Amino acid sequence: MSLDLRALTFDVFGTVVDWRTGIAREAEAILGARGHALDWGAFADRWRSLYQPAMERVRTGERPWAILDVLHRENLLHLLEEKAIGDLSADEIDHLNRAWHRLDPWPDVVDGLTRLKRRHIVAALSNGNVALLVHMSKRAGIPWDVILGAEVARAYKPAPEAYDRAAAMLGVEPGRCLMVAAHPGDLAAAAARGFRTAYVRRPLEYGPDKDRAWPEVKSWDFSVAGFDELAERLGC
Amino acid sequence: MSLDLRALTFDVFGTVVDWRTGIAREAEAILGARGHALDWGAFADRWRSLYQPAMERVRTGERPWAILDVLHRENLLHLLEEKAIGDLSADEIDHLNRAWHRLDPWPDVVDGLTRLKRRHIVAALSNGNVALLVHMSKRAGIPWDVILGAEVARAYKPAPEAYDRAAAMLGVEPGRCLMVAAHPGDLAAAAARGFRTAYVRRPLEYGPDKDRAWPEVKSWDFSVAGFDELAERLGC
Repeated sequence: MSLDLRALTFDVFGTVVDWRTGIAREAEAILGARGHALDWGAFADRWRSLYQPAMERVRTGERPWAILDVLHRENLLHLLEEKAIGDLSADEIDHLNRAWHRLDPWPDVVDGLTRLKRRHIVAALSNGNVALLVHMSKRAGIPWDVILGAEVARAYKPAPEAYDRAAAMLGVEPGRCLMVAAHPGDLAAAAARGFRTAYVRRPLEYGPDKDRAWPEVKSWDFSVAGFDELAERLGC
Repeated sequence: MSLDLRALTFDVFGTVVDWRTGIAREAEAILGARGHALDWGAFADRWRSLYQPAMERVRTGERPWAILDVLHRENLLHLLEEKAIGDLSADEIDHLNRAWHRLDPWPDVVDGLTRLKRRHIVAALSNGNVALLVHMSKRAGIPWDVILGAEVARAYKPAPEAYDRAAAMLGVEPGRCLMVAAHPGDLAAAAARGFRTAYVRRPLEYGPDKDRAWPEVKSWDFSVAGFDELAERLGC
């Protein structure tokens, strides 16, 4: 491979971990045990749907900086009110909110990262806060070299600063960084800052029944089915 | 152990890695090869002696924020001038400056951290910048869960913000964080912010001939000879 990559920066929610299955499982375990009966996949989808609007209020400066744990909790309160669920204590709400710390990686992730890490810096470049990502990584055995992302850069992707500051902190020119993500918007924003890009197909991110159109393969330096295929392509 | 620790935060230079031996080795390899003959241990000591004054100018606000790689390089230029060494190219100076990225851990470090990490978050809390710490860790196999420190907090230890922001980013109360360091000043500053403390004896940090008085053991929660003993004491 002639790209001479030094660092691989990874989106996390959807790219590394299966948030929908994990959130549905945790919500069912906590709320189902109290007798609430909901479509748990739809619950996860609704919680996730509040994510971008909440970050957008930070990006635009409409509200001051807040980490994702805080945004997730505000969104959860909103969602519980929508569902007329009023019987959780503050501690139980905190525990449910930390469901985002307890997500499982897609099956190819841990082995793939372990291979990729032999020859490259592997960095989380996520909108998740540091505590969330540390807890997730320890629970799931995700072997990051370094955790970067929104809290460290104090900028939510796809803001340009999120990518610029990550590359600067790694001391690696953007052209030797590969952004790895399942989301075209994240890749396009990284490419605009000079990053190389790898699109990872995660057909189940939004559940088993969602048809997804794959973006035009030519747009990215790589388009792969998983981290194992990426390791193969990079000769790791 | 009744402390109920969640996160262990480690000083790096002197506590995790043997900077003096490493810098002496790298300086000899690079400068000795050009025919310069110096006391390489003294060269390392002199370079290191410029470290605190350089950070102090940032701490006091006398100069704007600068990462340690930048301070190290300025100090190196000063040192080369002192030694009347004028025959290095900018690239060679950069390479010598990155000697701080190529330091080796003390012999107990990698095994000790691997044990400690099973039950605790293990975090670098160093004045080194992220790139320096990532490169060092990958080269030496130091298995951090997360790299924090001056660049992430934008504050050099022993400034209180360095400890406060590390605990906040980990989402762990300071009282459940253990600062691990070979330097009483670092531990005292961490304790003042509510951290627990572990003093690690590194008798060779300043070379084989330096007599060092150990601080009063009672001052710290732990006083140990290495990370293996710390793992033992924490039941890991």
